[in-house]
Amino acid sequence: MSVLYHHTVSAASRFVRICFAEIDFPADLVEERPWEKRPEFLKINPAGALPVCVSDNGYALCGPHVIAEWLDESFGVFKRDRRLLAEDPFQRAEIRRLMEWFFIKFEQDVARPLLRERVLKLQLPADQGGGSPDPKMLRAGRSNVRQHMKYLSWLAGSRAWLAGDRLSYADLAAAAAISVMDYLGEIDWSQSPQAKDWYQRVKSRPSFRPILADRMRNIPPVAHYTDLDF
Amino acid sequence: MSVLYHHTVSAASRFVRICFAEIDFPADLVEERPWEKRPEFLKINPAGALPVCVSDNGYALCGPHVIAEWLDESFGVFKRDRRLLAEDPFQRAEIRRLMEWFFIKFEQDVARPLLRERVLKLQLPADQGGGSPDPKMLRAGRSNVRQHMKYLSWLAGSRAWLAGDRLSYADLAAAAAISVMDYLGEIDWSQSPQAKDWYQRVKSRPSFRPILADRMRNIPPVAHYTDLDF
Repeated sequence: MSVLYHHTVSAASRFVRICFAEIDFPADLVEERPWEKRPEFLKINPAGALPVCVSDNGYALCGPHVIAEWLDESFGVFKRDRRLLAEDPFQRAEIRRLMEWFFIKFEQDVARPLLRERVLKLQLPADQGGGSPDPKMLRAGRSNVRQHMKYLSWLAGSRAWLAGDRLSYADLAAAAAISVMDYLGEIDWSQSPQAKDWYQRVKSRPSFRPILADRMRNIPPVAHYTDLDF
Repeated sequence: MSVLYHHTVSAASRFVRICFAEIDFPADLVEERPWEKRPEFLKINPAGALPVCVSDNGYALCGPHVIAEWLDESFGVFKRDRRLLAEDPFQRAEIRRLMEWFFIKFEQDVARPLLRERVLKLQLPADQGGGSPDPKMLRAGRSNVRQHMKYLSWLAGSRAWLAGDRLSYADLAAAAAISVMDYLGEIDWSQSPQAKDWYQRVKSRPSFRPILADRMRNIPPVAHYTDLDF
């Protein structure tokens, strides 16, 4: 059986878990705390980043893009209507663009500052950067959330699914990224009805159930986190 | 004809120019300075990042990964021995892992700090962050270069090409990233003979010639930049 190294605060890890469930790809889950820089984990992925899938023949597949492409080439391509990449090269490009948007740009603008201030600092000792959140960083991250939600609403309002007519990796990448911020109560859904309608649809999928069952250590989710009708 | 928005300090732009040359894909080059946040460019790529290829039918392909996958699916797949992605799914995964390594990790650890301190600060007015380089940032970036060169040497020493037996996107991504740092004299080749041997092979390819002809405004390259036998 394949093994997926993941963590609940890692949007990219959540994305891969959802994709595996959508494609019925079985994997054992192993929680990894990448900030601990465990030597055995660095041997598997020298970049030290999550997620990593070690396939049953021992190959390490590192990062959400690599895993998603491999999953599509090896299994998704046979799933017809349930495939998460398109056939058309330009639609594939749009799906990949949005995956990068959420794994790189959203991560950099929103997830990294807010997770560092609100989650990581709680877990680290003071001499490694632990402590109370920096209000300036929180403000910057929250201002970026609002901009990103505007773009997400625009996408959700102008297309059936984020990258076009069908559910794709783009939706699962966006929903995974949003779910971490929603857990922390950082999403103001009243300002984004179109994004909310889209998120409700993704959140109601069976593949999303384990994500809604996730809990971060010492941080309970906002009240509406698990509601499918929030 | 397709149009490629690029800039010479952008390793990802250099990578796409080299790939286009390897695959004989014609495109008009347009220089874009992404830090100016030109509204017309943001309409094409809301992420504001380079490179962007606008295809002859008007689709915008954003970022090196999206362009590389599209190029392979649409043209590279027919090139047999000159194809830059492998057939085997696990070899494809290794090529993609290394592309990400150079476009995300090397960029973050090395290129972003050194380019900001040595190039961007020269071009910006003081109220937008211009000024003289911060020695602490320079030291951090240079220490990271040494670590990355060790990893590159290990890869170059243990395989014929970086991702395996054949030239691939991984080599072109790495060489594009290294070429920007080499221009600035940030690579100590005497410490990395195996990486040097590999870079000499990539640098000698006809696809690399336009890269060696690139010049940054007000910053001449180090003496050995264009030497194929350095």
